[in-house]
Order: sequence, then structure tokens, then C-alpha cells
Amino acid sequence: MDILQQMKQFLEPQSVALVGLTRSTGEDSFNVMENLLSYGYQGKMFPINPSTSEILGIKTYPSVAEIPEPADLAIIATPRNLVPHLLHECSQKGIRSAVVFAQGFADAIDDEGKQLHRQMLDVIKNNGIRVVGPNTFGTANAFINFSSSFFRQKLKKWPIGIICQSGMFYIGFPELAMTGKGIDLGNACDISFVEGLQYFEDDPQTRVVVLHIEGMKDPTSFTNVAQKVARKKPLIALKTGRNEQAARAAESHTGSLTGKDELWNTALNQAGVIRVNDLQELVDITRAFAVLPPLQNPNVAVASLSGALGIMTLDACRHTNLKMGRLSPQTQKGIEAISPPWLKIGNPLDIWPVMMSSPNVFTPLVNGLNTLLSDTQLGAVIFIGAAFDEKWATGLPQFLTDLAARHPDKPFACCIYGPNGDDAIKGLQEAGKIAAYPTPERALKALDKVYQYSQLRSRL
Amino acid sequence: MDILQQMKQFLEPQSVALVGLTRSTGEDSFNVMENLLSYGYQGKMFPINPSTSEILGIKTYPSVAEIPEPADLAIIATPRNLVPHLLHECSQKGIRSAVVFAQGFADAIDDEGKQLHRQMLDVIKNNGIRVVGPNTFGTANAFINFSSSFFRQKLKKWPIGIICQSGMFYIGFPELAMTGKGIDLGNACDISFVEGLQYFEDDPQTRVVVLHIEGMKDPTSFTNVAQKVARKKPLIALKTGRNEQAARAAESHTGSLTGKDELWNTALNQAGVIRVNDLQELVDITRAFAVLPPLQNPNVAVASLSGALGIMTLDACRHTNLKMGRLSPQTQKGIEAISPPWLKIGNPLDIWPVMMSSPNVFTPLVNGLNTLLSDTQLGAVIFIGAAFDEKWATGLPQFLTDLAARHPDKPFACCIYGPNGDDAIKGLQEAGKIAAYPTPERALKALDKVYQYSQLRSRL
Repeated sequence: MDILQQMKQFLEPQSVALVGLTRSTGEDSFNVMENLLSYGYQGKMFPINPSTSEILGIKTYPSVAEIPEPADLAIIATPRNLVPHLLHECSQKGIRSAVVFAQGFADAIDDEGKQLHRQMLDVIKNNGIRVVGPNTFGTANAFINFSSSFFRQKLKKWPIGIICQSGMFYIGFPELAMTGKGIDLGNACDISFVEGLQYFEDDPQTRVVVLHIEGMKDPTSFTNVAQKVARKKPLIALKTGRNEQAARAAESHTGSLTGKDELWNTALNQAGVIRVNDLQELVDITRAFAVLPPLQNPNVAVASLSGALGIMTLDACRHTNLKMGRLSPQTQKGIEAISPPWLKIGNPLDIWPVMMSSPNVFTPLVNGLNTLLSDTQLGAVIFIGAAFDEKWATGLPQFLTDLAARHPDKPFACCIYGPNGDDAIKGLQEAGKIAAYPTPERALKALDKVYQYSQLRSRL
Repeated sequence: MDILQQMKQFLEPQSVALVGLTRSTGEDSFNVMENLLSYGYQGKMFPINPSTSEILGIKTYPSVAEIPEPADLAIIATPRNLVPHLLHECSQKGIRSAVVFAQGFADAIDDEGKQLHRQMLDVIKNNGIRVVGPNTFGTANAFINFSSSFFRQKLKKWPIGIICQSGMFYIGFPELAMTGKGIDLGNACDISFVEGLQYFEDDPQTRVVVLHIEGMKDPTSFTNVAQKVARKKPLIALKTGRNEQAARAAESHTGSLTGKDELWNTALNQAGVIRVNDLQELVDITRAFAVLPPLQNPNVAVASLSGALGIMTLDACRHTNLKMGRLSPQTQKGIEAISPPWLKIGNPLDIWPVMMSSPNVFTPLVNGLNTLLSDTQLGAVIFIGAAFDEKWATGLPQFLTDLAARHPDKPFACCIYGPNGDDAIKGLQEAGKIAAYPTPERALKALDKVYQYSQLRSRL
């Protein structure tokens, strides 16, 4: 089987064998089949549990040997000591792909863990079965309502592909559900970043690939395939374990090698991978790439409800490659026409006095933003506004998304503050046309990476 | 009148004259009196509007001259051209303090604005009335349910005092309602940072003072009083306008002088003011100071549901003065007693396997955290957990707050991820015992500033 077919078994399984599935259902039962039913997964499911005949109305099988056909994917949810034997049984049945949840292999401090790790590698080598894990939540694909995770995920059909070494990326962050599609490598005893990248390289449902790297065995193969992928779509990497103590912790977490941080900087940069420094940057930048068109012109315009936030945006520019663009004479005229005579028309543009010049504050705001978005000399537009109450929290996403839809080739980012800002940001994010943040600095930083990628891509 | 009495008129007014109050009520009417009624403000209110006899059932007066007594504070909500005359009228009535909303004075580009600015200064100089503004939302005090802002605020009785040059701080941020008490200086034509600091210096309701500085006329007086205040409580400053272009924008925003950024660095540092770099830092660090006890010992412990996030916390340490502390033998033993035998007990502590060792995952989690919080060799504890669903989002704040209450002298911070993380963070924030963040890096950075302040204070 070629690697693409193999990875499709992991990410697009048409049938799954649920090995060691719990009989418990409901809250806190971590029942994978119950999760799959709740997502609306349409593939075949073969639950394996020797102590019962059905779970959730679905016939169970006493062992892998007795399921009616070799499933695309086995999801193994047993204690660690059963794993090598069960992998062998799966391979005998003709199953070629397995996810292993259990902890306590290369990540354990006891001899039993190390021994089980070696046994598992032997089965993989000798029986042709491939493994994602152990110490993993497995694979996820929102587009087919599938996740092997024992935690109930919120599956979102985002154009984001994730390859990570922790289940936290499936559980997600307040500001971003991280699927799309995902591969939690866990200890990465077999399937690793290279195979994951090979899957995402030409996957039409994936616009941006996120990597959470603690360490890996073969960085050379990784950088080779990463560079190939980076020519086609942005790759964003959070490489952790950056000092000696953290690197040692990473090695004990997943039992993998880490390497000097400076070497990683060089390698990722040469491969065209965008390295981020922390989790907030990862979330913010991923969100920008997921929704924005390319940004090739670093001259941006800012329209702000708050003069103070306009100034903070200017401050934030100094850490980026972006600059405040000059408004075209036509834009200048268009803004002047709807402004009070005493207002200085500049960039950043103080748009509050413009809004207050009309009984319906939204009308001049839409007109002003539309004028900026239409200016062909500007690479991107940033709106800084507030959600003062629920009405604004629902109103802003609607009219801003409408505006963005009229200018599909112009990157459009927002910073929304105010007591209902988080709702407005969620609304904008769900609508998927605008990158929205709670502070101007985070918006600028994310836009800057979108610009950097267009520069990077031209050199790869 | 001494300055403290004067500032009490601004921040603790027992009566207000509402000059130019709109007759409109309801949504988008920006009716200050309607806002005050909604907050439950108990002071006297004298609405002044010559075109009607009552607003919201309260008797109006045709002019300032006709109100029955000199109010503590006049809130002037008229167009700019009426302001100098009205200030004069207020002073004739015996009113000594006024908030002026209107824009278009020193911040305007037209001659009329500059002229009105000079006229206003003349009235202030010659008639003994003091002004907050213009171009301001005025003053706010959640403890007496008061705000002069025409926008309806969410008043929270936080121990935070704010002196700012923008109304955005009253409108607040998704993650933090910024009152407490506030003075929006606006253009700061009269009352400025010095007077604001004099009010907050010994105010028992204020634990931490936040400064948003665009520029000021008299930095020397400011640094003198700031150093006095910093000996008593933390001062956090966001000084914006950091490059030439941004500084020019700041000057046009509020018409004030800005000065070289490096000089500000030096001056703030010498005064013992904690300078932050952006809005996110300001919000994160303010939140920590508002709820945490002092942090004098830089050795912290981290307990994480996710090994990956534990490693990111270690990474984040390299930008701070904090380090992972050594667990005492007693702590080590206490954790071992509730852990599976294969688990490596370290710091960061991977607490997920500990939780999975019991049918009720919360019991070992509480025991583990309690053991860490009891370790006298550790300066602070950081818990990194997930809110997987609504139950976790309400459960975590409850039991974590209970734990914090049992250890009132130990700074306790959290990072909560997961789909319901934002609700859990809000719950923790409302309970007011723990500083909670969505990423470990932001938690570390905030704790680091709390530690830095205890170092700083000892040298002031």
C-alpha cells in the first residue's frame, strides 16, 4: 500500500474496529463509538468487547478475529500490556492501520514500558501494520464527522490540517477549535511528521498546515518534505522544548529526540516553515491563514473607533514588515465627504467622528470601510471596533462579513474590544471571511505572517 | 479646595449636574442619566435641558443657574462651541469640577477648535473650576455605581484604578472590564496623571493602578508622584506612541506632547512603574495584580493536564525571572502516593495520569494541587487544565477557587484551554482568587511581573 493510501485509512476511514470499547456510555465515559454517533460518522463500526453482545444498540464482537471484514482503522483503547498482542491480531485480520491510546511506553520510567515499546515496534516491522501513537488521541477529520479521540471534540470544517504530539490540539482552545483534520502523533513510534505532511501536501480540504513539534527521529526527511509542502500552502510550526530543561521534559513526554533550538530555527527557516514562539501566536496566525487571501503589499490601512487603539496599531507596526499606506487621493476625498470638517483624515483613520456625523452610525462606517477596501494601493485593511452590547456583537460580524465578501482579494482583519467583543470575534470567525482578534497587536502580528509567507513562497 | 477633595468630587460625586442631557432614551440614546439610573447611582441628579420639563420622570432645569444647589460635578454633553460659556456658568453657580465630552479642541485641525481650547483654559484659570477632558468619557467609580460615560458601562467592583487617555478603557476588553475606578483624561487640558495618582495613592479600594499614557505636559511631576505611589501599590503603564509616526498620531489624538520612547523607558523604570508592551500584556498583568497576593519566591510549580503544555510552560520560563522549583521530599511523596507507578514525578508535573488513577478524576486532582500549594519552598503554583464541556467550565472555577481560599498567601495561576475554556476563565476571574489565562505563556508573563514588583518595591 502506498503512503497516501495508508494515510487515507487513518484520516478517511470507511470502517473502524473499536478494540477494547467500554460498555459505559454517557457523561465521562470516554466512549469513542458514542462520540462517533454524536458526530454523525457514516462509516461502519465494529465494537470489540468480550463481555457483552451490544453497545448502544450496535452488535459487538468478542475479538478482532471475529469482525466480518478488515476495517480500515483499528482504534485500540486497552491498557498498555495488551497492545502488542492486539496489534498482531489486527494484522492477522488484514487491518493495516491502528491508533493506540495507551500511555506508558517510551514515555514511561519503568522497564515494562520500555519492553512493551520494543514489542510494539517488532509487530509493526514484521506484520506490516502501521501505528499512530501510542499516547495519542489518534486522527480526526471534521469533513467526514470522524475523530478517534475518546474526548468528545467540537468538529469544525476548517481548512486546517494539524500534525501534533499532544491531544490538547484536539481539545482545542477557547479561541479556535483546531480541526479540520488532525493527526496526534503522540509518541510517534511509527507514523510521524513526514507521513502526515505527505497526506496534507495535496489535500484540497487543507489550506494551512499546523505542526506542533516536540522532537523527531529524522529531521532531514522532515525538512525535505516540509519544503515541498511549503511551496503549496503555509506551514506553521510551534517547536517546543527550547531550552535544555524543556528539551529533557519533551524527551520524557513522548520519548523522542529534540535537538538544539538554534538548529531548529535554521532548519525550519530553510524549509520555508513559519516558526511561531508560543501558543497564542500559533492560534492567531493559523486563524489568519485559514480565512484570508494572500497579502502581497505591505501597505495597510487602519480605521479605528478609538484613536488610542489606532496609535497602538502604529506602535505594533515597528515589530512587523507592515506599514501604514498612503491613502489614494480618491480615497482621501471619499472619506472627507462623510467626515466632520475639523477631522484630520489620516492613516490610522479615526472613524468615530465619521460615524457620529450620521443618525445611523453604521452607514458612514460601512461607507468608510468600503472606500478603504476599494483602494488598490492598499494591501490590507484593519478595522478596530467595539462590541458595546449584544446588538453590536451580532451586527458587526454581519456587516463586516458582507463587506469582506465584496472584496474577496483584500485581506481584512479586525480588532474588536468592548464587553461583548468575544461574541463578535466568534461570530466573525464562524463566518470565515475576516481574521478577528481582541487586540490590534495580535491582528498586526498575524497579518504580518500572511505577508511574510507570500515573500517566502516566492523564494522557495 | 485641596486636590484630594477636588478629586473626590470627580470620583465620588454626591450630586451631578447633567448639562445638555438628551431627551432621547433607550437604545443608542447615549443618555447619561438613564445609565446612572441603570447602575443604581444614589446621588442627586440635576438634568439641564431647556426644551423639556422632565426626563425619565426627573425634573429638568432650563439652565445651570437654576439648579437648586451647586452639584459636586457637572457633566457637559454639548457641542464644543458651547463649552467655554457653560464652564463659566457652572463656576458662577459654585460648581468646582466638570467633565467635558466634546471632541474638536486641541485635537482638531481647524482654527475654531484651537480658539475654543484657549477660551476653555482661560475659564479654568480665572474661575477656579477644574476640568477632566475634553474628548473624554469622564470619571467612573463602580463602588458607588457611578460613571459619567455616555456609553453604558459594565461596572465591576474590581480593586483597579485607571488613568487613561481614551474611552476604550471604559468600554473594556473581552477579557477584563477595566473598572474599579477610572479617570479618562481625554485631552488632559487640566486634570492629568499627577492629580489622578494623588487620588489613588491612599485609596483603600484600589490595589493596582493602570496608566494609559500617550503624552503629558509635566513628566517630572508625574515621575515624582508615581514613585511615591509605586512604594504603596503596583503601577502598570502602557505608554503608546513609540515611534515617530505613532508619537505624531498621539499628539494629534489628544493634543499633548509625547517625547522620546527611550526617555520614557528610563523615567518609568526609575519611578518603579511596570511598563508593558501592548494591550494584551496590560490586561493580563492587571488581572494578576488585582487578585494575587505578593510573590517573593521565584520557584514555581506547574501541574498540567497536558504534557505538551507543561513543556511550553518550561519554554516560557526563559523570558522570565521564574524557574521550576524543586519539590520538597514531602511533596514528592504526597504526589507519588496518588500516582501510577510508571509516572515520572517532576516539575512540571504531568497530572493527567494521576487523575486517571481514580474513578472520580477531580479527587486526585484536588489532592495533587493541594499538596503543591502546601509546599513552603514553592513561591507559586500554576495549574494547566482544560474545560472539556460545560460541566468542567463550572466545576473547575468552583474547586480551584476553594483551593485558593485555603492558601490565601500562595499566588495561584491557571491556564485553561478546551472548547469551554473561556467560560471557565470568566468564572475564575469573577471569583477573584486566581489569575486565569488561555495560554501558559501569558500566565507565566503575568506572574513574572508580580514577582518583579516585589523585587522593585524593596528597592524604591
